Amino acid sequence: MTGKTGTTSRRGFMRAGLAASVALPALAAQARAQGGPDPLITEVQDWASFMGEGVDATPYGLPIHFESDVIRRNVEWLTADTISSINFTPIHRLDGTLTPAGCAFERHHSGAIELAKPDYRLMVNGLVERPLVFTYEDLERFPRKQAVYFCECAANSGMEWGGAQLNGSQFTHGMIHNMEYVGVSMRVLLEEAGVKPEGKWIYVEGADASSNGRSIPLEKAMDDVLVAFKANGEALRKEHGYPVRLVVPGWEGNLWVKWLRRIEVTDMAVESREETSKYTDTLADGTSRKWTWVMDAKSVVTAPSPQVPITHGPGPLVITGLAWSGRGAITRVDVSKDGGKTWETARLAAPGVPMAMTRFYLDTHWDGSEMLLQSRAVDETGYVQPTKDALREIRGMNSIYHNNGIQTWWIKEDGSGENVEVSA
Amino acid sequence: MTGKTGTTSRRGFMRAGLAASVALPALAAQARAQGGPDPLITEVQDWASFMGEGVDATPYGLPIHFESDVIRRNVEWLTADTISSINFTPIHRLDGTLTPAGCAFERHHSGAIELAKPDYRLMVNGLVERPLVFTYEDLERFPRKQAVYFCECAANSGMEWGGAQLNGSQFTHGMIHNMEYVGVSMRVLLEEAGVKPEGKWIYVEGADASSNGRSIPLEKAMDDVLVAFKANGEALRKEHGYPVRLVVPGWEGNLWVKWLRRIEVTDMAVESREETSKYTDTLADGTSRKWTWVMDAKSVVTAPSPQVPITHGPGPLVITGLAWSGRGAITRVDVSKDGGKTWETARLAAPGVPMAMTRFYLDTHWDGSEMLLQSRAVDETGYVQPTKDALREIRGMNSIYHNNGIQTWWIKEDGSGENVEVSA
Repeated sequence: MTGKTGTTSRRGFMRAGLAASVALPALAAQARAQGGPDPLITEVQDWASFMGEGVDATPYGLPIHFESDVIRRNVEWLTADTISSINFTPIHRLDGTLTPAGCAFERHHSGAIELAKPDYRLMVNGLVERPLVFTYEDLERFPRKQAVYFCECAANSGMEWGGAQLNGSQFTHGMIHNMEYVGVSMRVLLEEAGVKPEGKWIYVEGADASSNGRSIPLEKAMDDVLVAFKANGEALRKEHGYPVRLVVPGWEGNLWVKWLRRIEVTDMAVESREETSKYTDTLADGTSRKWTWVMDAKSVVTAPSPQVPITHGPGPLVITGLAWSGRGAITRVDVSKDGGKTWETARLAAPGVPMAMTRFYLDTHWDGSEMLLQSRAVDETGYVQPTKDALREIRGMNSIYHNNGIQTWWIKEDGSGENVEVSA
Repeated sequence: MTGKTGTTSRRGFMRAGLAASVALPALAAQARAQGGPDPLITEVQDWASFMGEGVDATPYGLPIHFESDVIRRNVEWLTADTISSINFTPIHRLDGTLTPAGCAFERHHSGAIELAKPDYRLMVNGLVERPLVFTYEDLERFPRKQAVYFCECAANSGMEWGGAQLNGSQFTHGMIHNMEYVGVSMRVLLEEAGVKPEGKWIYVEGADASSNGRSIPLEKAMDDVLVAFKANGEALRKEHGYPVRLVVPGWEGNLWVKWLRRIEVTDMAVESREETSKYTDTLADGTSRKWTWVMDAKSVVTAPSPQVPITHGPGPLVITGLAWSGRGAITRVDVSKDGGKTWETARLAAPGVPMAMTRFYLDTHWDGSEMLLQSRAVDETGYVQPTKDALREIRGMNSIYHNNGIQTWWIKEDGSGENVEVSA
């Protein structure tokens, strides 16, 4: 593989030289155009002559200003309502699998509240032997677990039900992030309180005005749900539920209650607003699927894509993207350049991790002609990511949530990209 | 384990109640002291009544202000020289294994320079068939690799050679970070240039004024060295070598050249300043060990520790820390409460990852008496982290670098901690 790429890339660089020079400062561009020496190589630069900035200036650092466009973004018409807002992770500009907390999407129903650790309380009540209230310090005294999980909003890609809408992977697939969490097992807290035999569900709610109450079957709660207080090594960010949020591996983001305030053990589901009028999937006949918690296998090509055009000529090209499944580990990702007619199996950067994001690469040669780029994820259960049309056949057109259909980017001869749909 | 902890922790909480209340607002404290209702539970709080902050305000977010003390810190007398500075990761306040880029230690020899991607060039020259110069865009067209690695300064814990010095794990062990990198294999770039048979070493240097030139054996360069452009998903931070740095898995941080400018293939080591007068280990007889690249297995208890005292009474206590080895994966970590007389095997949060940090926990019960806390790492080669005295016997007292000796924290009855040494 490397050998082949090596060969093609050598040819690539000869052609790439001029294309790349366009981006260079005038002097260098002129020199290279004339085939003369490149001052960026031949001349001693200021940055090699003078002292750079000390880091004492940035005890907690931010990205360099050159990267100021790698930020969360909103879609105006989606967030007209100021009480409830969504923003999107710039997945088109990231690589690897982790999402930096600073640009990790967040969606809230009544704003990101400010809740100090000394003011934090977590109540466990309902069908338990010993109703309990924990302080933040109490939680830190229980055994902790650590794992990387993706958190995807059920509405991610929801705009695509009606056909290609938003022009970029940040907007079509950016309501997702992937972080390393540390917290206490929900199981441990429930065992501390002692669940009565009649207890079959838990009802969880947050300390914000929306409370965002949701019901979770006891079986899931006792399995892998975390009461988390760290993400990517540090305390949760304010907008991600500081100081404590729920982590519900593989399940829709709305269940990942932020500023977690209360866990009530119940004998049946509460059927709250967030699980009846919202977060249910209305079918063609007007009836709605509910309890559609699991996020099915899904993937997207992050680059090239509408926000990340190809800026060089024909030759070596890395096509990359992300894949994930709420049912386990990603085992394979296929990439198509012709809208799904033919597929090539991509290279996974690392073996799939259950309910976490997996980075895939297709190291290929671009001949300069247009492409209809698609990716198709397969998970350990054998589930294969479906086309949007296949989803519509079963779910109709009334849904907002759980659109895990295959995304298509039309990459044109000039390297620019556009969100399109191709019919099978 | 969980069962046992569950039992002890219930007792713990009854005692913990009052201790915790000290930190509460007056009203709540008073109420709890009187055994009355806690208004933080019984009264509707402002944050549950009013709209929180929208996140549009923070397109790239920072930690909440309550965490403003979780930052990189300097040690004045270590950084009197303003041209060359070191700062330390707040490992005492982190959990999990990853280090957020914003508080990941950085050490530089002539400041953190500002180098834009269009101005970036990487030269590969010396004993090669085809001398090459890559632009940043060229590098993005090669196959990419992804992996998590620790980067530790060879001088980390160096102040401890003379005995207990700095009072906190941030200062004794904070010259380390652990991130997920994405980049191109050095092997691929060298194959692109074509290494001549006489080529046995590479000499790498950065674009900053110090250039920080170092020699690396070709065998290592062809093995797992990365020319990296992403860390923890996003572009490298300015202070970590934006736009391109070297990643040399398991080897001392000084080799991880930042703002990478040149890779020269040579027939012998250059014996540069950074590998002769610096980064060599002077022994008792005045001779110096050189080419001591690998960071041996090491660990430290991050909490409780001098910067993170125990703030509650006797009962359940989580003792946690980090372990790593430049020779492979961590397979076991033992913790001692009595200065090394007796040991308990800690729980690894996840299986050890080669040349990456591993989080360990000892879920225990604190009886309220003083402790001499130590941790001892074992890696997949069977190497056992030595005591400081054992290191001194072999290396003498002249060394600055490669101190991987066992650290001791004296945790007193009042919960406070102090950096001490115990003789075996």
